[in-house]
Amino acid sequence: MSFDPSTLVYNDAGLIPAIAQDATSGEVLMMAWMNQEAVARTLATGRVTYWSRSRQSFWVKGETSGHVQELVNLRIDCDRDCLLLTVNQTGAACHTGRRTCFYTEVRSGAEVELMQPER
Amino acid sequence: MSFDPSTLVYNDAGLIPAIAQDATSGEVLMMAWMNQEAVARTLATGRVTYWSRSRQSFWVKGETSGHVQELVNLRIDCDRDCLLLTVNQTGAACHTGRRTCFYTEVRSGAEVELMQPER
Repeated sequence: MSFDPSTLVYNDAGLIPAIAQDATSGEVLMMAWMNQEAVARTLATGRVTYWSRSRQSFWVKGETSGHVQELVNLRIDCDRDCLLLTVNQTGAACHTGRRTCFYTEVRSGAEVELMQPER
Repeated sequence: MSFDPSTLVYNDAGLIPAIAQDATSGEVLMMAWMNQEAVARTLATGRVTYWSRSRQSFWVKGETSGHVQELVNLRIDCDRDCLLLTVNQTGAACHTGRRTCFYTEVRSGAEVELMQPER
């Protein structure tokens, strides 16, 4: 069956959550949002492209930082309302300079920071 | 710093997306939603508890299917608006009986089903 981005289920704002996972380490790097056109652009270019809700514009990951995400594969969940992207991540995925956005862990009721920004 | 679920960033419906990742395989299993009380219950019980948007009720994962998720750890992203749960998954995570909800892949413009339901 050929894939048509319009068949995905978008929320009221026309967006679908996309989880990025490192193709090599399996580490979950971040979650961001795509609209239908961002999904199409990501597949067409192989460069992961989100929709920035704060800037209300396309966000080609790494365009300014150089921390690009090269798409390895794109998967769709059972409800068609969430995407899983396997990516080759250059540099840090997180805008704080950390490898992953999920750098805070709850342990015994306390928040623990797992890693520092990379240099 | 002690963790308070009220410090997370919830959407207009009072929900935060939670990604479940298999603690052993690293496979991303599913994404579902939690409200503040579901986060608190998950941490208090060690049994992953979502908020079902369709049923508008708490959803203790596996309560009817037996396919429970035991919480291994809970991580928070940089914007505090997404959670990553590492879990020990019993049985299939997906309601279709598949190991993961992300069983459809886009390959060369076509949708390919990667796995069948488990028995």
